[in-house]
Amino acid sequence: MRSILPAAVRNLSQELMRLPGIGPKSARRLSIYLLRQPRSTVASLGDSLKNLHARVRTCRTCFTLAEEEECIVCRDESRERHLLCVVESPLDVEALERTESYRGMYHVLGGVLSPLEGVGPEQLSLQSLFERVGGGEVSELIIALNPTLEGEATARHIVRHLPPGGATITRLARGLPTGGDIEFADAVTLSAALEGRKKF
Amino acid sequence: MRSILPAAVRNLSQELMRLPGIGPKSARRLSIYLLRQPRSTVASLGDSLKNLHARVRTCRTCFTLAEEEECIVCRDESRERHLLCVVESPLDVEALERTESYRGMYHVLGGVLSPLEGVGPEQLSLQSLFERVGGGEVSELIIALNPTLEGEATARHIVRHLPPGGATITRLARGLPTGGDIEFADAVTLSAALEGRKKF
Repeated sequence: MRSILPAAVRNLSQELMRLPGIGPKSARRLSIYLLRQPRSTVASLGDSLKNLHARVRTCRTCFTLAEEEECIVCRDESRERHLLCVVESPLDVEALERTESYRGMYHVLGGVLSPLEGVGPEQLSLQSLFERVGGGEVSELIIALNPTLEGEATARHIVRHLPPGGATITRLARGLPTGGDIEFADAVTLSAALEGRKKF
Repeated sequence: MRSILPAAVRNLSQELMRLPGIGPKSARRLSIYLLRQPRSTVASLGDSLKNLHARVRTCRTCFTLAEEEECIVCRDESRERHLLCVVESPLDVEALERTESYRGMYHVLGGVLSPLEGVGPEQLSLQSLFERVGGGEVSELIIALNPTLEGEATARHIVRHLPPGGATITRLARGLPTGGDIEFADAVTLSAALEGRKKF
């Protein structure tokens, strides 16, 4: 299809289209939007993208994102090392830290088992999780994976392959989300809320 | 709020949040997504952004985006110079060119009148539109502004201030969009379709 847009705009649109959730129309609109912004703003976004990989690495212990060899949490001597929380991604660590109610350690899997998408146990940091738990320092392993089919399968895989030993295994409570509406809650959430009911 | 994400990820998220339709959560997700892509892909997006302004300018005649002093359409000797189509943005030119059924010239306003957003006649390329029409070469001025309140007001402004002379003023037909559904058409669209009915 013939386009009268300049090559620089078409190139940028092509590259923006690779981002999740951005189709051809949004990509063109975004390009034109960027063209209307001050040159320095756009250049600074360009620099941030170019520097991204160089300035970010993966924590050698827990596999979350880090600026140095170990992340802030793993370097923090005041954290409770006997608590280990397994999550899927660094954004889950970020969400749990926001609660300010967890003072233990993390282990980022880097995904969940998903045979359809070619994610098997080797693609995740499972081996080093088992080694951490097998080391004997962990007294409780908290499984904080998303309540999806893949998350469940991954949780089961972990429990099955965990080295025998002292660690108690727990998982996040299921129930109604705060601000939720019983009338609109799905049946699975509602049964979980009933099952996990607590004394008032 | 304390964040455990590396500074490079937080900076990128901050900059992405300036884009329309991207909130804090999408910005963080997008940053993590980009971190998982090959370094070269992300760097190339960064370069496209940095080069955007340097490689794009505005056509001196019609104000659409161009790579040289004049855009492809204005430079094309085979176009019909007596037809002039007024549009809001370069993306509208792109859309009209896609139809392959218009062979005239364009004039890009660069927006529509919107007192609430501080867009007055001076912010648009209205003066040079009036000069082009006043030049006498234009026999038909086609108003192709969006059918919104602002688009209507801008069209009225143009008609009122156009220098007296030979140019006929037309506007794009209103009616049902192809693939549309009469049942769900709004009343204004449906009255326009009735009013503009044609012999079968």
